[in-house]
Amino acid sequence: MSDTDKKVTAAVIMIGDEILSGRTQDKNLNFIATWLGERGIRVMEARVVPDIEDEIVDAVNTLRAKFDYVFTSGGIGPTHDDITADSIAKAFGVPIGHHPEAMARLTAHYEAQGIEFNEARQRMARIPDTATLIDNPVSKAPGFQIGNVFVMAGIPSVMQAMITGIEDRLTGGARMLACSVAGQIAEGMVAGPLGALQEKYPAVSMGSYPYYKDGTFGANLVFRSTDPALLEAVKQEAVEMVRSLGVEPVIGDGT
Amino acid sequence: MSDTDKKVTAAVIMIGDEILSGRTQDKNLNFIATWLGERGIRVMEARVVPDIEDEIVDAVNTLRAKFDYVFTSGGIGPTHDDITADSIAKAFGVPIGHHPEAMARLTAHYEAQGIEFNEARQRMARIPDTATLIDNPVSKAPGFQIGNVFVMAGIPSVMQAMITGIEDRLTGGARMLACSVAGQIAEGMVAGPLGALQEKYPAVSMGSYPYYKDGTFGANLVFRSTDPALLEAVKQEAVEMVRSLGVEPVIGDGT
Repeated sequence: MSDTDKKVTAAVIMIGDEILSGRTQDKNLNFIATWLGERGIRVMEARVVPDIEDEIVDAVNTLRAKFDYVFTSGGIGPTHDDITADSIAKAFGVPIGHHPEAMARLTAHYEAQGIEFNEARQRMARIPDTATLIDNPVSKAPGFQIGNVFVMAGIPSVMQAMITGIEDRLTGGARMLACSVAGQIAEGMVAGPLGALQEKYPAVSMGSYPYYKDGTFGANLVFRSTDPALLEAVKQEAVEMVRSLGVEPVIGDGT
Repeated sequence: MSDTDKKVTAAVIMIGDEILSGRTQDKNLNFIATWLGERGIRVMEARVVPDIEDEIVDAVNTLRAKFDYVFTSGGIGPTHDDITADSIAKAFGVPIGHHPEAMARLTAHYEAQGIEFNEARQRMARIPDTATLIDNPVSKAPGFQIGNVFVMAGIPSVMQAMITGIEDRLTGGARMLACSVAGQIAEGMVAGPLGALQEKYPAVSMGSYPYYKDGTFGANLVFRSTDPALLEAVKQEAVEMVRSLGVEPVIGDGT
């Protein structure tokens, strides 16, 4: 699951009008990014696209060529606006049909509940040719993997169960470690010394994240590196830097 | 502010490693999408890009050509990782320098507080040539507009103050109205009739948003149209449709 030198990258595509209209607050990107990060896979870009086939095809084809992995969420249910599977098939230029194993799982699931496995529900067994299934322990209708693209449900609890189940299909790289040094410090005060610190340690990614709470501005300085010793050295310098500005630093884990 | 026949579109770009690493849960897209929607401007795509100049340039140039408006958030502070202004200047192929009015506002702001207006803070006055300022009533450092691109802060409270201030620069189109019919109804049960309803009313956008709560699946059917009479007719049919499936419908406003 880990190759300590390699940078492994990913993109996330959230598919659905409801996020773009403001009706739904997306929570999937945050979960996916955190979960992948813990496994040495860095999310480098995310997109939210509407339920329009050409838009999904374009996003998938652009991002699967650019990054090691692509993860999508949304649009794999039984209703007419669930067009993700067909769009992915089009993106890969492969036919799509009812997948025998998906049909078997859903048939068993609905039979056990005494619910009709109707035409709409059979839509959820439509999987692009050459794709492999992703288990759905919550509601059975599977996601799928085709090439480096992993297609998952949009409901957060279902998506989370799906991604957890594909861990052994993913090869992580060097895990990005993080630490933070925060304080009630104006960004404009720390910007100069922080820029100098960045120049001294170009291999460590340094970000300054201001916050505004109860009328006071503060900043959280976040440091990221795959090298724990280097990160520790930078943290010590950052602590001294903040202290020299007359502010007591609060050390954190970068979250 | 409103042209009742025209479809006016927008894209949103969130700039910042912290969203892609999972450190920060984005809330700006949801606010911007809702606020624009209320003004007849539809967000058609959103992207989260890292603090990398080429990525910002590509996203801005692709999306400003494709949609009526582009709104960005993040990366306009004083630290070395705040590269949005320079990236936007590059995207438009214009020089960038210290904007006199921005310098004046920030000079006055820091003088009044007895805080040094140092080199890092002056970075926040760097604005691409030909851009016009966007007021920042919270912390003074302005955003800016260049062409159809509106560049705003990443801190939600500051971003919200900025976008509120540019309302008179935006021309909305036909406002998308919404209503919803929800119930403890399986998507697979309603999918067939809903698909038929969609065929009968192709001009109304129909989405089915499943939810999973306390072990029970339900669905929220959301209908969108710029025509209130058409929307009302569809709502009545949807209510009857859900009732005919043995479920008592709950009518909502689509949120």
